[in-house]
Amino acid sequence: MKTEICDQFGIEFPLFAFSHCRDVVAAVTNAGGFGVLGGTAYTPDQLHQELTWIDEQVKGKPYGVDIIVPAKFEGKGENLSFGQLADRIPDDFRGFINDLLAAHDIDISDQPRMAASSLSGDTGASLLDVALNHPIKLMANALGVPPDYMIEAGKQTGIPVAALVGAKEHAIKQVNAGVDLIVAQGTEAGGHCGEVTTLVLIPEVIEAIKPIREVPVLAAGGIVTGRQMAASVALGAAGAWTGSVWLTTEEAETAPYTVQKFLAATSRDTVRSAGRTGKPSRQLVSDWTDAWAPHEGGRQPLPLPLQNMIAEPVLRRIDKLAEGGHPGAQKLATYFVGQGVGLMNKVKPAREVVLEFIEDYLAAAERLSRSLDD
Amino acid sequence: MKTEICDQFGIEFPLFAFSHCRDVVAAVTNAGGFGVLGGTAYTPDQLHQELTWIDEQVKGKPYGVDIIVPAKFEGKGENLSFGQLADRIPDDFRGFINDLLAAHDIDISDQPRMAASSLSGDTGASLLDVALNHPIKLMANALGVPPDYMIEAGKQTGIPVAALVGAKEHAIKQVNAGVDLIVAQGTEAGGHCGEVTTLVLIPEVIEAIKPIREVPVLAAGGIVTGRQMAASVALGAAGAWTGSVWLTTEEAETAPYTVQKFLAATSRDTVRSAGRTGKPSRQLVSDWTDAWAPHEGGRQPLPLPLQNMIAEPVLRRIDKLAEGGHPGAQKLATYFVGQGVGLMNKVKPAREVVLEFIEDYLAAAERLSRSLDD
Repeated sequence: MKTEICDQFGIEFPLFAFSHCRDVVAAVTNAGGFGVLGGTAYTPDQLHQELTWIDEQVKGKPYGVDIIVPAKFEGKGENLSFGQLADRIPDDFRGFINDLLAAHDIDISDQPRMAASSLSGDTGASLLDVALNHPIKLMANALGVPPDYMIEAGKQTGIPVAALVGAKEHAIKQVNAGVDLIVAQGTEAGGHCGEVTTLVLIPEVIEAIKPIREVPVLAAGGIVTGRQMAASVALGAAGAWTGSVWLTTEEAETAPYTVQKFLAATSRDTVRSAGRTGKPSRQLVSDWTDAWAPHEGGRQPLPLPLQNMIAEPVLRRIDKLAEGGHPGAQKLATYFVGQGVGLMNKVKPAREVVLEFIEDYLAAAERLSRSLDD
Repeated sequence: MKTEICDQFGIEFPLFAFSHCRDVVAAVTNAGGFGVLGGTAYTPDQLHQELTWIDEQVKGKPYGVDIIVPAKFEGKGENLSFGQLADRIPDDFRGFINDLLAAHDIDISDQPRMAASSLSGDTGASLLDVALNHPIKLMANALGVPPDYMIEAGKQTGIPVAALVGAKEHAIKQVNAGVDLIVAQGTEAGGHCGEVTTLVLIPEVIEAIKPIREVPVLAAGGIVTGRQMAASVALGAAGAWTGSVWLTTEEAETAPYTVQKFLAATSRDTVRSAGRTGKPSRQLVSDWTDAWAPHEGGRQPLPLPLQNMIAEPVLRRIDKLAEGGHPGAQKLATYFVGQGVGLMNKVKPAREVVLEFIEDYLAAAERLSRSLDD
């Protein structure tokens, strides 16, 4: 393929792969796509190690880094310590979670029950500094308008800045802020997402930003096959941004029990819930997501990052127990994944996923073209 | 265009247009598409009149009829009278609605507060009898597996039977029941809808039914432009089934205030709520939809058709007041429409909508084809 975005990023196929796993990033980039490492969970030192490894694998081929710097969060601008933030968590939330765990035969009273959230917005700058010392070809922010220092770094280095949006109003804001690439992500996406579906959002975003400036739009949300990527290009997108589909690749570090859950899940086994981070995000339905609104009778979650501070350490522990076979934990465990999980039915090497995408994309283009023959 | 489904239905462009308005049905059919009249709200006599008028307009060109015969509803098989069904509505629901109306300065104590629901499942057979006395080329059921008498009529007359589904499990059930055409409708659709988005649902349904029998799948949900229809064909659909886009055509009987609401709405102004019929359906957000779960603090609605029996007469009255300029009623009024409403920004003749669909479809196919050029 030879599209503008392929030229701009030096790739053969405009398939962007977001993953927390360096092996996936390198495999996709080496297969002609564009790998993007999710850097938020790393310390600056760890991120440097991961990127050094990727550099060795891809030998100059292009890849990028994604960091979550939320534009809005509880305590923003107040410069609060962890303790001060923790004080904003009402006591009865701890009680509510204790009861939920007890009802599932889980006792983790010896474990830390709260942790600093990587979504609190204060680690992004140092991670970005590390990334800029590697030959990255894209920096992305996954939540809200990128911080000034990212936009500024983009201008100084010439490296494009991408931002994820779930509504046309956000896309307009981002383009005005100077973003170079819009990832328009539908509600079917795993992780943080809006309410509008990919099929509606892509044309809506493209029309909305057209009068401002020419900015390429990648489609995201539910895309796990080449035919869906072809559909996105038919809608006007420059390519696809994917996440969930890499979770069941051989390279992914997804734990075995989780992989089995993904393979067995249908598209109706996910839910958009704020019960994990405090902002709505899509994940597998579980007793945990059922415990929080908007599930019937569920409790209203706290805002980001407070909900994340109490939920994440508990969910990490639950994950470990679930992997060990604990039945209560297996009912509670939940994992970020999009509705596309219904189409993810086999573990494959990441390279094979890319090749299947290409093949399926070509078949879809051929199908659409054939519909015009008289 | 010359595809299998075009041949099967004798149409030039596989755009199916569902509308309650005979003018829209005739205009779409006469423009080379396939109009489908929503017949559920009519008495058998009225339906006969509407279809006679359509017959005169389309002069043998193909059109269809859609009837809602829900597969599941409160009181099914119990042969209950209206009064017996009404007795199942708890008194405090009436009080709740009274309070909601009073808070919006609405007094409709002189109006009937309850009505038989057209969704109670008992009128379908007589409507279908009427329809079969006209040269219809499709009969559709919009909610659940078509009743036996529809499947049977299809076999005897050779007229294809279509059914709407929102999940692959339902598609499998429908194909096994003998349906000839599956309309796979994503969560972005107006009216009754499931949770899975069109982009994920179409490939999922196609894969799921493939091993059973070859049945064409139309894509529905959010489709208001030709590029979205092209995306659907790239996904493997045989064409598109549309509804919302016709609500702002010149021919539609949509009231002026409602049309203005539609034109102003973005894709984020709709919500999937059971507060209208008792089953989740997508409509414009309003104080009415906010009053019912899953909205925060909203009340859990009654099952179909009970919720419809108390909601519909009140909402009809609210609509009238809203059209007359009543501010409280304008806050409460809600209308079935999909997320595609965000892309509906101008009133046009239905014929022009069809022609724009074709043009936009061709441009999208060209865009996808161009992405392959080396």
